[in-house]
Amino acid sequence: MDYRFSDRVLALKPNAIREILKSASDPEVISLSAGNPAPDAFPVAAISEISARLLRDNPIGVLQYGVSEGYAPLRDTLKSYLKEKHHIGSDSDELIIVSGAQQVMDIAAKSFLNEGDVLVCEAPSFVGALNTFRSYNTELVGVPVEPDGMNMEELEKVLDANPRAKMIYTIPNFQNPSGVTMSLGKRKRLYELAKAHDCLIIEDNPYGDLRYYGEDVPAIKSFDEDGIVIYSGSFSKVVSPGIRVGFMMANKAAMAKMIICKQGQDVHTTMWSQMLCNEFMTKYDYEGHLDYLRKLYTVKADLCMQLLDEYVVPNGISYNKIEGGLFIWCDLPENVDMLDFCKRLTERKVCVVPGNAFLTDSDLPCHSFRINFSTPTDEDLTEGIKEIGRLAKEIIK
Amino acid sequence: MDYRFSDRVLALKPNAIREILKSASDPEVISLSAGNPAPDAFPVAAISEISARLLRDNPIGVLQYGVSEGYAPLRDTLKSYLKEKHHIGSDSDELIIVSGAQQVMDIAAKSFLNEGDVLVCEAPSFVGALNTFRSYNTELVGVPVEPDGMNMEELEKVLDANPRAKMIYTIPNFQNPSGVTMSLGKRKRLYELAKAHDCLIIEDNPYGDLRYYGEDVPAIKSFDEDGIVIYSGSFSKVVSPGIRVGFMMANKAAMAKMIICKQGQDVHTTMWSQMLCNEFMTKYDYEGHLDYLRKLYTVKADLCMQLLDEYVVPNGISYNKIEGGLFIWCDLPENVDMLDFCKRLTERKVCVVPGNAFLTDSDLPCHSFRINFSTPTDEDLTEGIKEIGRLAKEIIK
Repeated sequence: MDYRFSDRVLALKPNAIREILKSASDPEVISLSAGNPAPDAFPVAAISEISARLLRDNPIGVLQYGVSEGYAPLRDTLKSYLKEKHHIGSDSDELIIVSGAQQVMDIAAKSFLNEGDVLVCEAPSFVGALNTFRSYNTELVGVPVEPDGMNMEELEKVLDANPRAKMIYTIPNFQNPSGVTMSLGKRKRLYELAKAHDCLIIEDNPYGDLRYYGEDVPAIKSFDEDGIVIYSGSFSKVVSPGIRVGFMMANKAAMAKMIICKQGQDVHTTMWSQMLCNEFMTKYDYEGHLDYLRKLYTVKADLCMQLLDEYVVPNGISYNKIEGGLFIWCDLPENVDMLDFCKRLTERKVCVVPGNAFLTDSDLPCHSFRINFSTPTDEDLTEGIKEIGRLAKEIIK
Repeated sequence: MDYRFSDRVLALKPNAIREILKSASDPEVISLSAGNPAPDAFPVAAISEISARLLRDNPIGVLQYGVSEGYAPLRDTLKSYLKEKHHIGSDSDELIIVSGAQQVMDIAAKSFLNEGDVLVCEAPSFVGALNTFRSYNTELVGVPVEPDGMNMEELEKVLDANPRAKMIYTIPNFQNPSGVTMSLGKRKRLYELAKAHDCLIIEDNPYGDLRYYGEDVPAIKSFDEDGIVIYSGSFSKVVSPGIRVGFMMANKAAMAKMIICKQGQDVHTTMWSQMLCNEFMTKYDYEGHLDYLRKLYTVKADLCMQLLDEYVVPNGISYNKIEGGLFIWCDLPENVDMLDFCKRLTERKVCVVPGNAFLTDSDLPCHSFRINFSTPTDEDLTEGIKEIGRLAKEIIK
């Protein structure tokens, strides 16, 4: 049977990272390619306790249909939390619960992007989001990332050159995969440019609470007076990704259409997961848990950067120092074939993600790869990075 | 801010039923408008037990990321179950887990329907699915439902007249909202017509296990030798809708694209929910639970039909006898304004769903309404149907 697929999915390919992860499931392989929380990061005792209580005290609430907008107490909790902690949210905004932040990308693209419309993103950017935008036949245009975020001159040029640009996608904190955080000045400039070009902004912030050094930078949404920012948050990195809970905040008029799209996709998000998040945020020491995570990952990030400094940098690979998040972006010299490097590394049982996976066009030249330090054990991280260093020593120069 | 929505969502309206349900949340209102399982239908004790065990024995499995295709043991369990019980599934088929059957409609439409393509459905049909198809700017064409399913002469005419027809959507068992089950002869004819017109079939079967009288009719998927049937199943009516677990089976080549769409929407379905379903199917008396549900709902269906026969039919409203499912479709005489009837009923604190909500165009003439008997208590069901009878007596004739 020759299937007549829709135009929008004809060229779609599976998420390259998730495919790599499948091949990295070999227990002999050291995987630095995932983006999973550390096994110690999960508040297992609290979740067990909450789950038992929910199923004892309110089983019908857990098991019956809910509303598409999400569990009302969790929506209220998040609205207050975002207001107090991040100064996000006005009377003209609405917040809904989604099945992981991935769903924000899908329903935002679906609600606003016609086939052939242009979405502007960081280059490199998160492949999972890019694939979702691609699945609506959106044209992707990348703007290079500098150590303080997108290059704003380039962004302006891109917006001027693309009258069909309708949306800008950014991960301002500890960007995946580059690790970069956008400066306040650039956040303000990005907002002004978006406004001037009648573009919406998707501010994707899954890692914002995982800052290990330095000071928080205000969210773009915090100065959204025009209703042009769709803010996306997630419990995946701070509570659990397996529960699939994220949330989004946007202007009420924009949200009304997105709620219909959410309804058409999965009716509503799993009730157990939503109630769990609300109980954990309101009846447990949520800030204490975030502190615990930051300490856990600071140790791992420090170890990773020390190992890179000791074994990898002297052999010709550079990397961006990070202040938070889960990823470090490494750059090979321009004369080294990055894909060949990653392939040889895999043969030596160490997996990283080739950087071209994060580009708007994976055939563009790329000399970088991404490593993750949250998932591997300290021993695996050490051995994996030493191996990267050994391979670099053999190949480079 | 005037938002520039995509063409596909411009005309979208919220699911009419879910809006009615919100207004029916007034505790004084007797709601016969939902499609929720009865509160006694949930296997609460088993779910509590399973949840506690999962979080004790395999917390990381519950909380960490999973693969987009779904939890492998549940996929295997369902493949065996469908094979043994319904003779569904061949070596060229694949089965994946989705976040409720609603997601099947979304990713099937997304993967196969270009804007302006035609989807043929029963008239009336499930508004939730229709809204999802609409959200891809699909043109919907309805084929009238008879007591043994779609009118096949009409289906053939519609397929002949619509060269862009690409997909046929059917709920063959205890159809929502008509309650009708498609005969074996019509299932075979529908398959042949689809094949001859190069159309795919979505066979949506959320109620198949809820048969109270008569014999099961073979699934259309069971004679799918050409890989043209996308079979959709759900745990919503037989375990719990709040957990959001459904599944779909389709030819592997067709499924490959749909998996990418699933990945782009929510990465994967909640792990807790998936593991719960697998444990419940494999370590508990799943068939015994289905028997229990059938007994529970047989009593309610019988009561509902007896009440209709006693209080409603004598006053001029007819209805289709059902053999299973959760809904009964009632027909007013053609000279009665159905919307006015439903509105007056609401004023008397009884909610039903106006039948036009289930049409491809809600402005088409319609003299029917849908009632549900699974959600209300026996007392509310009795009082609600008596009120329908009283209103009919006043208005009709």
